[in-house]
Amino acid sequence: MSTPASNITAPTQFLEVKNQKYAYRRFGKGPGLSLLCLQHFTGTLDNWDPAVTDPLAEEREVILFESAGIGCSSGKVPTNVAGMAAHAMAFLDALGLTVCDVLGFSLGGMVAQQMVLDRPSIFRRIILVGTAPRGGEDIMHLEKPSLAKHLSDPNLKGYTVLQKIFFAPTDSSQAAGAAFIGRLVQRKDDREPISGPEVAQAQMAAFRDWEQFTGERFAGLKSIRQPTLVINGVHDEMIPVRNSYWLSENQPNAVLLTYPDSGHGSLFQFHESFTRQAAAFLNSDSPFAPF
Amino acid sequence: MSTPASNITAPTQFLEVKNQKYAYRRFGKGPGLSLLCLQHFTGTLDNWDPAVTDPLAEEREVILFESAGIGCSSGKVPTNVAGMAAHAMAFLDALGLTVCDVLGFSLGGMVAQQMVLDRPSIFRRIILVGTAPRGGEDIMHLEKPSLAKHLSDPNLKGYTVLQKIFFAPTDSSQAAGAAFIGRLVQRKDDREPISGPEVAQAQMAAFRDWEQFTGERFAGLKSIRQPTLVINGVHDEMIPVRNSYWLSENQPNAVLLTYPDSGHGSLFQFHESFTRQAAAFLNSDSPFAPF
Repeated sequence: MSTPASNITAPTQFLEVKNQKYAYRRFGKGPGLSLLCLQHFTGTLDNWDPAVTDPLAEEREVILFESAGIGCSSGKVPTNVAGMAAHAMAFLDALGLTVCDVLGFSLGGMVAQQMVLDRPSIFRRIILVGTAPRGGEDIMHLEKPSLAKHLSDPNLKGYTVLQKIFFAPTDSSQAAGAAFIGRLVQRKDDREPISGPEVAQAQMAAFRDWEQFTGERFAGLKSIRQPTLVINGVHDEMIPVRNSYWLSENQPNAVLLTYPDSGHGSLFQFHESFTRQAAAFLNSDSPFAPF
Repeated sequence: MSTPASNITAPTQFLEVKNQKYAYRRFGKGPGLSLLCLQHFTGTLDNWDPAVTDPLAEEREVILFESAGIGCSSGKVPTNVAGMAAHAMAFLDALGLTVCDVLGFSLGGMVAQQMVLDRPSIFRRIILVGTAPRGGEDIMHLEKPSLAKHLSDPNLKGYTVLQKIFFAPTDSSQAAGAAFIGRLVQRKDDREPISGPEVAQAQMAAFRDWEQFTGERFAGLKSIRQPTLVINGVHDEMIPVRNSYWLSENQPNAVLLTYPDSGHGSLFQFHESFTRQAAAFLNSDSPFAPF
């Protein structure tokens, strides 16, 4: 059986674990460890930009995971990150993967952090994009004027709102956003259902919980010893870049890369740079993060 | 005439401009634009780590510049960055270089910023390591306990103090610091005189001046449109990493890369990563900084 190494064509597959059905896509091959991809707020399998996933799939298997209550996965969306991490680990266990690399974007980056805290052996190398540590600040406050003006604009429908909120308000970034939307709709068949308000509500509760912390702030990060690549756009309104500063300052083995002229979707805007840097990072065998 | 492409063996050369004599070294060749290297506080030509300069010289000519009043260069050290920038531009003019790339480390990064503000066409691509914008904070306050304890330690002589103040207080960073010192003393002949207190005093006055600003803070950075790569160690006590955050947030076309477990000398500690990233950045023809 040949699986096309692209998120435009990879079939959606299903895995049953107890009474839970998980949708996922799995494509690509090569010498690299499998790369688990954990998705952003309300995003489904269809929100993974093929310009990001496909180049990475040239040297490794890429696994896009749909957590409980999203798209064609059954169940309910947990209202905290720990619940989402438990689903992702149950999925990896059922796949028989004891160790993999991970790309966590936004909410997915929080899930990745929680997973490695709960089971340190699960990841070899970690990529965190546009995300925040527990105890971070200004995480997905969609009521902020800079975001609310787009989310409440009746002229912005479907994916076009993503162009506004994932990209910076410059001509160059907005053009990159339009190209991104164009890539997301390249997949014609077997698309996932779009997330509804109940998904957003549960995930928003998880963000509010993630902003809380007890004890010493960011202390948990010090135990994440895996080489980590932290990436953020400097004009990210959804999860501001200072959250990535805290990740890279407090994780003992993290490299930070920030992109100019870009917002939350910096990895999509600079997909050529991102996939080159991510591949170089993942291909490194060094115990140190610098690659 | 064959010039060895290493700072261990490259002869010190001299250039006379009016009544001023500049010492410099020039080695390497390849398709890349010439790379001007601008040095840190009290540093001479001998303070350029061959593990940083030599790999870069494989694809381009590297030019190490000794500003007025340092090493074998004649004249007096200016007490502000503008004066140092004027010397570097007079040197490039005399060499007949109308455009080049630049690597500015620490004080050298400030000089590079001033040069591109004074003459925007002088640089094609800019690398700024461990430096700060005008109006930055906590720039080279050697009286801070974290630095003063090493600078006043009678047991630390010569280069060994650099191991303490350029590297983080971890075993791994200190080991990298010892290796760095070992590389600096590989050059046996034709070494530069070490800087005395009058050099330090004038350069320190320049740092104090550089912390001052008038008008909107960091506004000058917005006019630096060159692709810029900003690099900093996250535990830099001499020029803290937040100064690099300001550079990358305010320059319109800058990528930031930070290194873990490292201080002011992050480029020396992670010289393999640094030279790989710097070369990829310099080799890019894109008008955008992401590489």
